Amino acid sequence: MSLTFDISDIHDDTLAGRVQHRIDRKTKPLGALGRLEPLALQLALVQGRDAPRLEAPQLVVFAADHGIAARGVSAYPSDVTWQMVENFLAGGAAVSVLARQHGLALTVVDCGVRHDFAPRAGLVVAKVAQGSADSSIGPAMSAAQCEEAMAHGAALVRDLPGNVLLLGEMGIGNTSAASLLMARLTGQPLADCVGRGTGLDDAGLAHKLVVLGQAMEANTSAQAPLEALAALGGLEIATMTGAVLQAAQQRRLIVVDGFITTAAVAVAAALTPAVLQRCVFAHASAESGHARWLVQLGAWPLFDLGMRLGEGSGAALAWPIVDSACRLLAEMASFETAGVSDRDSAA
Amino acid sequence: MSLTFDISDIHDDTLAGRVQHRIDRKTKPLGALGRLEPLALQLALVQGRDAPRLEAPQLVVFAADHGIAARGVSAYPSDVTWQMVENFLAGGAAVSVLARQHGLALTVVDCGVRHDFAPRAGLVVAKVAQGSADSSIGPAMSAAQCEEAMAHGAALVRDLPGNVLLLGEMGIGNTSAASLLMARLTGQPLADCVGRGTGLDDAGLAHKLVVLGQAMEANTSAQAPLEALAALGGLEIATMTGAVLQAAQQRRLIVVDGFITTAAVAVAAALTPAVLQRCVFAHASAESGHARWLVQLGAWPLFDLGMRLGEGSGAALAWPIVDSACRLLAEMASFETAGVSDRDSAA
Repeated sequence: MSLTFDISDIHDDTLAGRVQHRIDRKTKPLGALGRLEPLALQLALVQGRDAPRLEAPQLVVFAADHGIAARGVSAYPSDVTWQMVENFLAGGAAVSVLARQHGLALTVVDCGVRHDFAPRAGLVVAKVAQGSADSSIGPAMSAAQCEEAMAHGAALVRDLPGNVLLLGEMGIGNTSAASLLMARLTGQPLADCVGRGTGLDDAGLAHKLVVLGQAMEANTSAQAPLEALAALGGLEIATMTGAVLQAAQQRRLIVVDGFITTAAVAVAAALTPAVLQRCVFAHASAESGHARWLVQLGAWPLFDLGMRLGEGSGAALAWPIVDSACRLLAEMASFETAGVSDRDSAA
Repeated sequence: MSLTFDISDIHDDTLAGRVQHRIDRKTKPLGALGRLEPLALQLALVQGRDAPRLEAPQLVVFAADHGIAARGVSAYPSDVTWQMVENFLAGGAAVSVLARQHGLALTVVDCGVRHDFAPRAGLVVAKVAQGSADSSIGPAMSAAQCEEAMAHGAALVRDLPGNVLLLGEMGIGNTSAASLLMARLTGQPLADCVGRGTGLDDAGLAHKLVVLGQAMEANTSAQAPLEALAALGGLEIATMTGAVLQAAQQRRLIVVDGFITTAAVAVAAALTPAVLQRCVFAHASAESGHARWLVQLGAWPLFDLGMRLGEGSGAALAWPIVDSACRLLAEMASFETAGVSDRDSAA
């Protein structure tokens, strides 16, 4: 691959010790802020400073169509991909509402939607093709298409302000692509990687499993991460993978959404495990396979609200929690400054 | 009891059907917003209208001291109660930071702190006594004190603006009071109701269990909810119970924090189960017993971040999620208005 990323391992015991001590001296029992404490430490380590600041968070929704959708693996028609892009831009989708609530800049990227959009604010056209090919009969993308998509994602992130990237996606058929990547990258049985997506019934799920089995068969030679990404993934997942690698190189914090964004992160982490040090996993989604994949990645999601919408909706919901961790580290008083007695002092 | 509350059962199938239909026509797969969907429906039912609005959310921290703390049931000295009240008011505590982040009005109520505070903005003095008595040798409060505290809580809420009450508390020793109430109200073994509080070690936990066993013995006659509250509770828990009953009567939404606020809600619900219809349980705390109590109440917490701080910190963290549910119901487009194809339409 001509794209190269220099993603350093983040390891600074001195900084970690200082920040942990600062957390421990905050006016609260040791560890009483639970998951927020290692999260605050992570923010400091990712930014390499005692006082991390979260600046201009960017929620990017990567959208594309999937050839395999023609095989009836989704409960919704492919046209929903472009219609939902219009909905994002018009402000009516769940992620639009949540981004507005939290002041997150929202960018929608056409990575390969089977539709031509009129240009407008908030839309980036980085289209590689009018959707990927049907992976049940051959590779979804050529190596060149996959690399072009990744380059688009990297270039997009390079130009974004701020130091936080929140991942979102839209693409009818993309739980299929993510399931295929999970099965190939983790070696787990396909049946453990496939779920109901937008809401298949039992018969639909059985059919999806058959079609995805054909895709695994049709792409047996694609074993290495980037080969698997091209053969089994999709244009939005490839673009997102490039975006994740670029964000990791720049030590941006990456807020991962659900099953499909986890696929992009998993490909990036298969190339460079240090990517995971920059990632906060927002939630365990209700898509079957996601929780298992998170465990396999050693990820620790913040919450599980039974959501399975994608779009970046989980990442957006996680944003105020991430922000809280940063603010608590910055703003809470210590026992010393507040004049509060520490434990086991005389009453 | 001379205090009376008129808390109606909320039951409106017509409204529920309309709101559920509206949720189902939003541009997302059926049920894909997970827990946010029943939460949005709950907001509509609590407010009795199709388009609920969350107005002027009030985070109230109820503070008091506990006689039983002198028995060494906490890792921290009692002085921490008043010192933390000062910290709340100075803006340096975790809940101060979180309230600021989310624009929540923060009020601290001295329900019975063993300290006299200078008056200032944000502090309400509703002191019944300089702390409760030691429940390991007799009732923590007299019936009159308990009723006075409840009346204070009810009067406080009556005068608050807005339609949302978020519960917080501070009181060295109050996990002991909450554990005692849990054991008495639920009939579960005391050992299943007692945890490490602010961070007891194994020996401290064993000692706490012995002391709480003495308290159960010393107050065997206090079986009914209000008798148990007076004998085993605390002034902040009693004040909060009055506040919860008043809020429920006014159909305010009540956002419950952790173990101690659950105790107040459980007492109120033992009097009038319809209280629970108004409650959103923010989180399952790390305090042993809380998760079990939530199950017993039929509560469904939004998240579990392993927190055990109290103060209302969990309720404050839950606030943006509750707000999201309301905004999604109000602002998301439907399939019809957005021109998005529904499932199983022709591709």
